[in-house]
Amino acid sequence: MKWKARHLLVLALAVVDGLASGTPVLAQSDPLPSWNEGAAKQAIVKFVEVTTTQGSPSFVPPAERVATFDQDGTLWVEHPMYSQVVYCFDRVPAVVKAKPELANVEPFKTVLSGNREAIAKLSMDDLFKILAATLTGMSVEDFKAEAKKWLDTAKDPRWKRPYTELTYAPMQEVLKYLRANGYRTYIVTGGGQDFVRMYADEVYGIPPEQVVGTASGTKYGYTKNGKPFLTKEPKLLLNDNNAGKVEGIYLMIGRRPYAAFGNSTGDRQMLEYTKAGAGERLAMLVLHDDAQREYAYGPAQGLPATKVGTFTQALYDQATREGWVVISMKSDWKRIFTFEP
Amino acid sequence: MKWKARHLLVLALAVVDGLASGTPVLAQSDPLPSWNEGAAKQAIVKFVEVTTTQGSPSFVPPAERVATFDQDGTLWVEHPMYSQVVYCFDRVPAVVKAKPELANVEPFKTVLSGNREAIAKLSMDDLFKILAATLTGMSVEDFKAEAKKWLDTAKDPRWKRPYTELTYAPMQEVLKYLRANGYRTYIVTGGGQDFVRMYADEVYGIPPEQVVGTASGTKYGYTKNGKPFLTKEPKLLLNDNNAGKVEGIYLMIGRRPYAAFGNSTGDRQMLEYTKAGAGERLAMLVLHDDAQREYAYGPAQGLPATKVGTFTQALYDQATREGWVVISMKSDWKRIFTFEP
Repeated sequence: MKWKARHLLVLALAVVDGLASGTPVLAQSDPLPSWNEGAAKQAIVKFVEVTTTQGSPSFVPPAERVATFDQDGTLWVEHPMYSQVVYCFDRVPAVVKAKPELANVEPFKTVLSGNREAIAKLSMDDLFKILAATLTGMSVEDFKAEAKKWLDTAKDPRWKRPYTELTYAPMQEVLKYLRANGYRTYIVTGGGQDFVRMYADEVYGIPPEQVVGTASGTKYGYTKNGKPFLTKEPKLLLNDNNAGKVEGIYLMIGRRPYAAFGNSTGDRQMLEYTKAGAGERLAMLVLHDDAQREYAYGPAQGLPATKVGTFTQALYDQATREGWVVISMKSDWKRIFTFEP
Repeated sequence: MKWKARHLLVLALAVVDGLASGTPVLAQSDPLPSWNEGAAKQAIVKFVEVTTTQGSPSFVPPAERVATFDQDGTLWVEHPMYSQVVYCFDRVPAVVKAKPELANVEPFKTVLSGNREAIAKLSMDDLFKILAATLTGMSVEDFKAEAKKWLDTAKDPRWKRPYTELTYAPMQEVLKYLRANGYRTYIVTGGGQDFVRMYADEVYGIPPEQVVGTASGTKYGYTKNGKPFLTKEPKLLLNDNNAGKVEGIYLMIGRRPYAAFGNSTGDRQMLEYTKAGAGERLAMLVLHDDAQREYAYGPAQGLPATKVGTFTQALYDQATREGWVVISMKSDWKRIFTFEP
């Protein structure tokens, strides 16, 4: 047997073996090159090693390897406003064009006025009216077409790039590293499940069935030609925030995650639930403490307070107490975005 | 290179290739040995071949290969009554023991009386009260412990075997055949999602995250020691029957199935929705026309009418009209159960 053939055979068998056992196929020198050396990076690498090494007391069978990720502020930029809310506001003129009677009805009137001060004062009730009017009452196909158009063209004003390019390179590496080690990665987001499913596969390599989000009901019906279709209804099925994240995980996955990543008080229960499981579990929170390269907000650790992605001092203290790992964007991340050099 | 080594190499590379492309690795002489030759078996084999052969105009990329299966009456026996309903009735004495005030309240009083005639006359409202009392108002862990106890011990009176052994061998073969060809198999059942998830992995090889069923909400809370847990609430989130099956598929999978299997009017919309997709789609219905080996009910084709798993003549006619394939249990299945010789 020639060396090359033997080498190929060994490699092929290793690949077969690796695929079957869920262990990594080829040793990588550094699976997390965008991370600085430190406790956060170490925690991730150690977690993967002890849960995927055969014979380790913390070994997790491949079928049970589930990792959940909040999206806004954890996998991509959420400031100054969640991308999906920007989408909904951008959609208001089209909604009013289709239903002209809304032009003089609040909160649509205020949104159309363009008066930023007045818009910033809209209540949560107003916001829900805007979300309902722009995200429901249409067929699933129409929604997808509209969302796609926006995702293809809208740009974040600071980076002048499509929103889908504003994902964090270090977190993309964590997603890939976990998957290479047999973990199934899920998004568990307060954002709309349908909206995030539009791009999650392309942007994160996460297929639609692994996106759990805030979900409205749909209604089955038929076109004039008898073709069945679904309409998005203004009926909230799952509010995938706070305790709703755990309830969503139970509903859609039916397994407790071994690792969970978040960045705000909305992720607290998901991290608690994850850590309450037996064996080795990983809970991490991204702290936005880098105004220069991205944004800085808390109010934990004296950072400026915010309503978008609030990270309270109480959450920070709970993390310290319960062994969750806080990721400092400023010191743990070598680079923020994949488009950076 | 010796022959054996070369053979191993070719085999290993074929496996790698097969795993990567989602095509079958080793040719099987007959993937469906419990099926008689006929239109039903042919339809399954043809569907798999044209959707998984590279270069076929109907080729379906592995990521999109989704097949959905109703459970009761499609994968296992549903007569004379759905197993889960038997479970709920069996649970009534324990529920009344915990809450003695229910002993004199209907419908619990009637269930406790054991009067079969009176029990058979209970209304749907009564049934819902029994389901709510026996399936909700407890922690998820307590529910699992109770259900497991029952599943381990309860036996079907006709076959004198655990309910989980009453699955159809021909359908088990279809599940395996589809999976061997890169399809992900889902259960989409009117039964309780939590109940079916208890045994679906062991019985069908279908993991919890691939079980879509009728689902109640849960509520997040803490034990006295601060450990988080979920309580099953008497709040219906998803009624996974009829149009609800399509809505459940959209919510939980977010993809249109390429193949769907059912056996009653409750599966009609799932089959319509599946067939309405582009390309090659497979829709099949099991007709219970074998009183000797299992049960016979319709009322389609003059079979006795039933309230449990109703298969109307209208459904039969729709199947004929729209190219769905009706499986005759009597003539298409060589054997019914895996425990048969």
